[in-house]
Amino acid sequence: MIMTALPQFEPNQALTLDDLREVWPVLSDDDRAEAFRLLPREEAEDFYLSLTAWEQARLILSLPSRERKLWVRQMPPDDAVDVLQAVPPENREEILALLDPRTRQEVLALMAYAEDAAGGLMSPRFARVRPDQTAEEALKYLREQVRHQLETIYYAYVLDPTQKLLGVVSVRELFAAPGDKPVRDLMETDVLSVPEDLHQEEVARIMFDHDLMAVPVVDEQNRIKGIITFDDVADVVEEETTEDMQKMGGMEALEASYLQTGILEMVKKRAVWLCVLLVGQMLTATAMGRYQAEITRAVVLALFIPLIISSGGNSGSQAATLVIRAMALNELRLKDWWRVMGREMISGLILGGILAVIGLARILLSQVLFQDYGRHAGLLALTVGLSLIAVVTWGTVAGSALPFVLRRFGFDPASASAPFVATLVDVSGIVIYFTVAELILSGSLL
Amino acid sequence: MIMTALPQFEPNQALTLDDLREVWPVLSDDDRAEAFRLLPREEAEDFYLSLTAWEQARLILSLPSRERKLWVRQMPPDDAVDVLQAVPPENREEILALLDPRTRQEVLALMAYAEDAAGGLMSPRFARVRPDQTAEEALKYLREQVRHQLETIYYAYVLDPTQKLLGVVSVRELFAAPGDKPVRDLMETDVLSVPEDLHQEEVARIMFDHDLMAVPVVDEQNRIKGIITFDDVADVVEEETTEDMQKMGGMEALEASYLQTGILEMVKKRAVWLCVLLVGQMLTATAMGRYQAEITRAVVLALFIPLIISSGGNSGSQAATLVIRAMALNELRLKDWWRVMGREMISGLILGGILAVIGLARILLSQVLFQDYGRHAGLLALTVGLSLIAVVTWGTVAGSALPFVLRRFGFDPASASAPFVATLVDVSGIVIYFTVAELILSGSLL
Repeated sequence: MIMTALPQFEPNQALTLDDLREVWPVLSDDDRAEAFRLLPREEAEDFYLSLTAWEQARLILSLPSRERKLWVRQMPPDDAVDVLQAVPPENREEILALLDPRTRQEVLALMAYAEDAAGGLMSPRFARVRPDQTAEEALKYLREQVRHQLETIYYAYVLDPTQKLLGVVSVRELFAAPGDKPVRDLMETDVLSVPEDLHQEEVARIMFDHDLMAVPVVDEQNRIKGIITFDDVADVVEEETTEDMQKMGGMEALEASYLQTGILEMVKKRAVWLCVLLVGQMLTATAMGRYQAEITRAVVLALFIPLIISSGGNSGSQAATLVIRAMALNELRLKDWWRVMGREMISGLILGGILAVIGLARILLSQVLFQDYGRHAGLLALTVGLSLIAVVTWGTVAGSALPFVLRRFGFDPASASAPFVATLVDVSGIVIYFTVAELILSGSLL
Repeated sequence: MIMTALPQFEPNQALTLDDLREVWPVLSDDDRAEAFRLLPREEAEDFYLSLTAWEQARLILSLPSRERKLWVRQMPPDDAVDVLQAVPPENREEILALLDPRTRQEVLALMAYAEDAAGGLMSPRFARVRPDQTAEEALKYLREQVRHQLETIYYAYVLDPTQKLLGVVSVRELFAAPGDKPVRDLMETDVLSVPEDLHQEEVARIMFDHDLMAVPVVDEQNRIKGIITFDDVADVVEEETTEDMQKMGGMEALEASYLQTGILEMVKKRAVWLCVLLVGQMLTATAMGRYQAEITRAVVLALFIPLIISSGGNSGSQAATLVIRAMALNELRLKDWWRVMGREMISGLILGGILAVIGLARILLSQVLFQDYGRHAGLLALTVGLSLIAVVTWGTVAGSALPFVLRRFGFDPASASAPFVATLVDVSGIVIYFTVAELILSGSLL
């Protein structure tokens, strides 16, 4: 019963689109279907089209069988493919059977492509004209194609008889041209196109970088297979960015939105990395175990361990974030490695220097005010300061190098998460700290 | 000299667009201008339009004065505004003077808006039709408007004589309609529009969520002021996401790309947060100072401090990342606070439980194999296990709460970076650990 989930509604009150958007994230699938069916037809259409493929799939499966066809047929073939890929395999046949024959055929052709490839994203419904048509003829021809529910008629693709892509012309250019000018003389021949198997992230990057409203997908013989429109990649960019961020936060990417992901599913996505990191952190206990004698002699040394190792982790997290994002935006490539290392080495030294001054000041001030650290306070301050410089420089270099290393070996650079970098730097930070301590304090505190 | 920066080019070899894109990020402003001038005219135009406003501004200022006008005039008014906002204030007059009078007037009107508001993003060049025109008349009228360099002619806005927005009609609909049907009967009257002062992030969110190619900007009387097209917001989304990520990595957002940001500028953006976090971390030294007696009695306790507090930081970083991204995508609002806290409390207990089992197993195994931890190994393992449950649960709850708290008080939730959350949890983690240790080990190890 929807009313149990929506206590604020009076039973006889009409459900508006805004109300539904408001409560949608917290509704169960059945409540969603029930609420959806309360919407006036036109609003229901708008709302349906604004849902993600994943939500559409769940909604369709929750509707009574007789109402499914209506909504499945609302979708152009590329969107229908997305929905089919989101429904459980056992429901696919049933949904496919609801499509009209032409769309079903298009959908089956598109489903041969990988879900995250250009082919899996494209629509076969694009506007076409011939090079020998005049501007006037081309416009008339476009008008005839309107009834085919094309993705867009704004760009018309100029094809030869074998479907080879010769050029592209926009409605704007056809409007502006003298009516008897042939399309051949109007079209842009230098068309940016993408191969069928290009990854959707690359497609999105190309469209964003060139501000393209649509891009044609071609096979190896330059024959046009379909077009991808900006609304297809807008979702891709958001999805990929969300995945990147979740990986950068130290977990596996969720498949659905936060509130739609069950708690156990979410725990699974988070537990794997937490366990890996815990095992990594156990090396800190091992490293500290090696210095147990030093800690026993000078317990004061232990007090500064969290401060020093976390400063390395923090500077490493900054560096990793900068490099991962710059890589995602194609601003950095593998070959920029040395340039980045150089910059980060210098940045790390300066940042470490600044932190060292603050750390030193803190210990000396505390010593002057409260006599906290005994007669070797000066040497202790020096140890902490030098360790900060070394650990921060190392953290910065390691944090910026890790995404390069991951990409070099075929992993996602976004996996160089802040927690991953911090764990890496924590272990080495302890070794650096105690090495500096032995050098400076041996004979005094140690 | 460009050749110094591009040793791989033979002096007589022509510079291609691909070559230039390849080396662009590493070139100085002067080399950029020099290389740019080597491009054939048409390629130079494509390349120029693909640059960010910031890069366009720097390029224009590096070109000889007599060549600037050509490139300044390449731009529609909304893009010219972006460039003007990117040039130093002292150069603005000079660039403005290069525009043709009509564009200059439009640019000055647009510059009255805040840079990151809808008004600052819109173009005043949109296609318009009248409600009493027939489809055929409207198409003819659109063709007449083509010469005005409109942003897009795909959507035509239906206005009354006072510029009030009555509806919108697409070229597709005009094509499909019978020629004598009035626009009034064809137009969509339920037009999604945005107010002039809406923040660009909100505008982008609305356009992405509704897959809009363009959205009209209206004043309080619903009079149309301009339109924002998808290419304007594509950049906005990338910029805002990059800012979010950099903040989440524990630093201030950079204003330019990684390689284009000077080292000192970058150190400044990173040092502020590193210093704040270091001062925060000093509380860990203070907290540990309070337990110096306990550490002296049982040095073994110190060994597990990094492992325990970093597990809290890691789980907190995951939770904060999830909540920040869900907020950015409008999947979570302030009122979801209790729901999120409930979910995170449960997730934290389960995750903490899993880590506790691993931690416990590690200590007991190590004890069986190497007799590392003396006769109180069992109690020590229990202390570490219970601390992990408490610290991970606390980290998860704190990490998910922090973005809510920041947003509630008007700050950017993305500032709840992994390092910030980790620092917060580190201090409390130490207190939790030693409290648990006192409860369990008092009378044995302590």
